[in-house]
Amino acid sequence: MVDNLSNGSVETMKVLEGNPNFNFYKFDVNNTIKLRGVFDKHPFDMVFHMAANADTAKGEEAPHEDIENTLFTTLNVLEMMRIYEIKKFFFASSSTVYGNADERLQEHRSIMRPISHYGAGKLASEAFVSSFSHLRDFQVWIACFCYAVGPNMTQGVIPDLIRKLKAHPAELEVFGDGTQTKPFIWIDDLVDGVKWMLNHTNEDYNAYLVGVQSNVTVAQIAQIVMEEVGIQVPIKYTGDYKGSKGDVHKYSYDVSRLRLMGWTPKYTAEEAIRKSIRENLKNI
Amino acid sequence: MVDNLSNGSVETMKVLEGNPNFNFYKFDVNNTIKLRGVFDKHPFDMVFHMAANADTAKGEEAPHEDIENTLFTTLNVLEMMRIYEIKKFFFASSSTVYGNADERLQEHRSIMRPISHYGAGKLASEAFVSSFSHLRDFQVWIACFCYAVGPNMTQGVIPDLIRKLKAHPAELEVFGDGTQTKPFIWIDDLVDGVKWMLNHTNEDYNAYLVGVQSNVTVAQIAQIVMEEVGIQVPIKYTGDYKGSKGDVHKYSYDVSRLRLMGWTPKYTAEEAIRKSIRENLKNI
Repeated sequence: MVDNLSNGSVETMKVLEGNPNFNFYKFDVNNTIKLRGVFDKHPFDMVFHMAANADTAKGEEAPHEDIENTLFTTLNVLEMMRIYEIKKFFFASSSTVYGNADERLQEHRSIMRPISHYGAGKLASEAFVSSFSHLRDFQVWIACFCYAVGPNMTQGVIPDLIRKLKAHPAELEVFGDGTQTKPFIWIDDLVDGVKWMLNHTNEDYNAYLVGVQSNVTVAQIAQIVMEEVGIQVPIKYTGDYKGSKGDVHKYSYDVSRLRLMGWTPKYTAEEAIRKSIRENLKNI
Repeated sequence: MVDNLSNGSVETMKVLEGNPNFNFYKFDVNNTIKLRGVFDKHPFDMVFHMAANADTAKGEEAPHEDIENTLFTTLNVLEMMRIYEIKKFFFASSSTVYGNADERLQEHRSIMRPISHYGAGKLASEAFVSSFSHLRDFQVWIACFCYAVGPNMTQGVIPDLIRKLKAHPAELEVFGDGTQTKPFIWIDDLVDGVKWMLNHTNEDYNAYLVGVQSNVTVAQIAQIVMEEVGIQVPIKYTGDYKGSKGDVHKYSYDVSRLRLMGWTPKYTAEEAIRKSIRENLKNI
């Protein structure tokens, strides 16, 4: 694994300590000299590329964040695929490639018109994954992720609301009107979906939405936070907050393609949210 | 106009000489210092971005050709849109963003899976056009071009076949089996379609296929070349030629959206081919 740990930590890798098949290199994937060194050393059968700018709001003011960390990292890894003649490639894409959509997102059907540089970087990456894989004959799996939740969350609505309620237990302030709606998937379900896709699809180009059919609103999340903390206080909606301009306010997934093939996530969006709140209450 | 003339000449600009609204700067759009100089000097209302690597086969072996000349040029121009707060943007996209497709291409419906780095560079460009225009509130027109033909062609099937027939008038060698099929548009029709789109559409984001509904095969082109030269000789198909790996063998356009709105190209694909052969016979 190569990671500059801009958004991760050695802590979370402890579980892999002592595994003879795991090697960790701490550097930026855009350091192509070091990247070649890793490819020189290991004869990889398959490459999983997930490096990207994770702070999507930051990218709005500074496009180079997504251009460099989301797109250029992909171009560099694709060059390694080409140079080292590696034949299997996994790419983590995102619902953000679609931008605003009225209907449930469907792979190969929904219009791709990203409203954030993060989404543009992911779509631009997909474009070159397509051309490189065709011209260099390597097999591709693309998983288009929705909003993943789990333990140890550092940013986003879950730790935000927990912190607010603990700091001000008389009322719970919620940005906006509470209508922001997303399909939240439990992190283990996401990993399971990716594994399932890798084991059950074998075309030259395999692209799937990996997510849940159900959704949860921010208003529901606020309610579940209060239930799990064990207090009921009035919710105060700030009303005017629209989120960052590049954030898709509402979206939902049509995951029927993977489900018809047999995959089922264990938790609904609401169960994933509740589970994540319980886990995060342990540390916040 | 900014052009490095990598695929153009001062000759073709003679018609604009003396026009007080026309200024020409010869440099590469990736020279951002010089590019800023031009934007500093002129208060543009609208920017037309068409710079790209034109030698698509070259890009197959050297991805950086399309990454730099097709994608980076777009990113640089989009940065200028942002920095100079320009509110109207035109982008020349290409049928190649779609890759291989069984059905007629339709904007907003066909799967976008480019098979060349040129097509990937155009799709990646569209991705950032989308995010920049949303985040910076500028209006966008994207015209997705099919195969344009006209006078003074330097490369492609038309000058190739004319040159071959003139050099070896006993038979006409045609690469492949003659089934390569494309919607060829006469260059003036293409320009007219773009102008029509600019004058008749006014959404925030206007993306249209600009092309013809009709198609011509390479076998038909060979026949028309012989008719126009005035000789009939046997055609010898090489059979094994599949074109370059990144070339889409057959595609056709559904241009009903623009046509329903009232635009009609003057020439069919066959008429465009015949007209182009006549014009190019004057110089070859």
